[in-house]
Amino acid sequence: MKLIRKHVQQLQAYVPGEQPNGRGLVKLNTNENPCPPSPKVLEAVKAAVDGRLRLYPNPTAQELRETLAKVHGVSPGNMIVGNGSDELLALATRAFVAPGKDAIQYFTPSYSLYPVLANIHNATRNEVALKEDFSLPTLAELQAGRWNFKAALTYVTTPNAPSGRGYSTADLGALCKAQKGVVILDEAYVDFAEEHAMTLATKHSHVLVSRTFSKAYSLCFQRIGYFVGEAKLISALDKIRDSYNVNGLGQVAALATLRDLPYYRTNFKEIIRLREQVAAALASVGFVVLPSQTNFLLVKPPRLAAHTWQRKLREHNVLVRWFSDLRVKDYLRISIGSEKEMGALMRTVKAILKR
Amino acid sequence: MKLIRKHVQQLQAYVPGEQPNGRGLVKLNTNENPCPPSPKVLEAVKAAVDGRLRLYPNPTAQELRETLAKVHGVSPGNMIVGNGSDELLALATRAFVAPGKDAIQYFTPSYSLYPVLANIHNATRNEVALKEDFSLPTLAELQAGRWNFKAALTYVTTPNAPSGRGYSTADLGALCKAQKGVVILDEAYVDFAEEHAMTLATKHSHVLVSRTFSKAYSLCFQRIGYFVGEAKLISALDKIRDSYNVNGLGQVAALATLRDLPYYRTNFKEIIRLREQVAAALASVGFVVLPSQTNFLLVKPPRLAAHTWQRKLREHNVLVRWFSDLRVKDYLRISIGSEKEMGALMRTVKAILKR
Repeated sequence: MKLIRKHVQQLQAYVPGEQPNGRGLVKLNTNENPCPPSPKVLEAVKAAVDGRLRLYPNPTAQELRETLAKVHGVSPGNMIVGNGSDELLALATRAFVAPGKDAIQYFTPSYSLYPVLANIHNATRNEVALKEDFSLPTLAELQAGRWNFKAALTYVTTPNAPSGRGYSTADLGALCKAQKGVVILDEAYVDFAEEHAMTLATKHSHVLVSRTFSKAYSLCFQRIGYFVGEAKLISALDKIRDSYNVNGLGQVAALATLRDLPYYRTNFKEIIRLREQVAAALASVGFVVLPSQTNFLLVKPPRLAAHTWQRKLREHNVLVRWFSDLRVKDYLRISIGSEKEMGALMRTVKAILKR
Repeated sequence: MKLIRKHVQQLQAYVPGEQPNGRGLVKLNTNENPCPPSPKVLEAVKAAVDGRLRLYPNPTAQELRETLAKVHGVSPGNMIVGNGSDELLALATRAFVAPGKDAIQYFTPSYSLYPVLANIHNATRNEVALKEDFSLPTLAELQAGRWNFKAALTYVTTPNAPSGRGYSTADLGALCKAQKGVVILDEAYVDFAEEHAMTLATKHSHVLVSRTFSKAYSLCFQRIGYFVGEAKLISALDKIRDSYNVNGLGQVAALATLRDLPYYRTNFKEIIRLREQVAAALASVGFVVLPSQTNFLLVKPPRLAAHTWQRKLREHNVLVRWFSDLRVKDYLRISIGSEKEMGALMRTVKAILKR
């Protein structure tokens, strides 16, 4: 008897960016925030580390959902909190997509998890290329191509990863309006962008917006993400999630974060300032630098292949991300770290160019 | 266009035991451990609450898996860590069970999550009753009934919840040997039992043992569970889990727990002692008390219906669990709390009986 389902046997696991144990590394490969969480957040988490760890956390992250609902001007019934937004992106496949039948659709390149989620769920993938400069195709262009306006589930990374390009709410709105199935606007990096599209989740009953505390709010370690959208869609996700999906100290950390937003807004500004500075510095030594509305830069390095650049930087203890995908294989994705880390990056880049 | 899959629309969400916010409640409804985590665990978690929260946790819980592998005398490839064992129990449905086709099988009564997981996955449920005293049917009895030896996935809660009854490794071994599909021995409460069945996971390539840090190790809040078993089965689960499924502070807490096991062994003994004491006390006032190898008691209360008892105890701020399932609707499940809490329980029980 075959114990493992055929499509699972054939799966390739998602490969996350390297998480090395070694110290002294300049880690610019997984878009983590160089700033620590606010001192008030650390204080709140420490204060919660006591005998209460023996108790189950709130199963629906109730206080966190209530607070987030106020932040976004919606009801708690419009919010679901997940074990990172990755959990929610996966739940959406199971709630909205019939395996072996319905399509999961996304632009390429975008978040490299989407095809993995489609394959795990044994769903049809519909991948449609972004334009050459990574901007969104127009509706007319989509209509002329393989885009499926009836796809059961469409993921849009906005601003886009790995390109860093931002999309206007007007363009996203036109796309959402034309889609018949569920659309998830994955705004993991939106705090570094000029615009967000939260209004589309409140306006359309088939649109969900995905957010995370990982990137902008320096809480990767504690796995907190959330969706905002129509109560019916949220309720479907709620019914199929694990009963205690969000760990307790993560809930505490996220709540404390929402009480200290000015700290984070200062960080965003600093990261954006540094992003523009590094973009200019890399351009000045021959890199093609794409415009970014995120906390990373997609760059085409000069002289050597991107993959070779990644290896050489790694030899100098600088970690950046390279994707084998055809559309981006000539690029490196470089997270914006601290001022000191970006200094180390630029020194290493110049040293490699001098050889 | 229908946005939500039909079987998801029809789902009833799993109802976890009440997690009230109020203080002053005697909370004996969700089998939480009355003892706090070890002081060394609290210290280790507090020491980890710093700028590192901005970084992703280890994606495979590597150090924790390595340490657990040593504890159980297996390889790290035989271990997967989950966001609570609930996550892993759910992953197993998706790795091993073809929805709309294969069967998920379990005894009734057992962990009330199993039918929920089967329904979420749109799988066939095969529920087979335990014997009248909640012991395992013999193989001959199973062969004569509706038991399916080719079920794709069989869950066995051992010791059983909600009855508390322990099963011998010999009996479980005979059952495992006869099953053709995957068997999960769900040992959530095994630290309070006389025997465990870990050897069955190392002996049989189709048997997984599920463990959790929630109950015995006082870490419900941080969601850490794990499976032990054949590398091929573990790898299938690994490929379909969320990439960073285990939060960082949970990994820290679980690792520190494994370094201070004597603290917990002392707790287990104390809870077992108290369990036997409370069992005798309840029996002396007319309760039918089933033998327990767990940190809870299943009891049939005298005079009033079990549901009425639950309500009356709640009015006195004592929370116990009642299940509407036909087989156990005449029972209450009472977690073993602290000596003080069990004193409060007995006083309340006697007060209700005096009316």
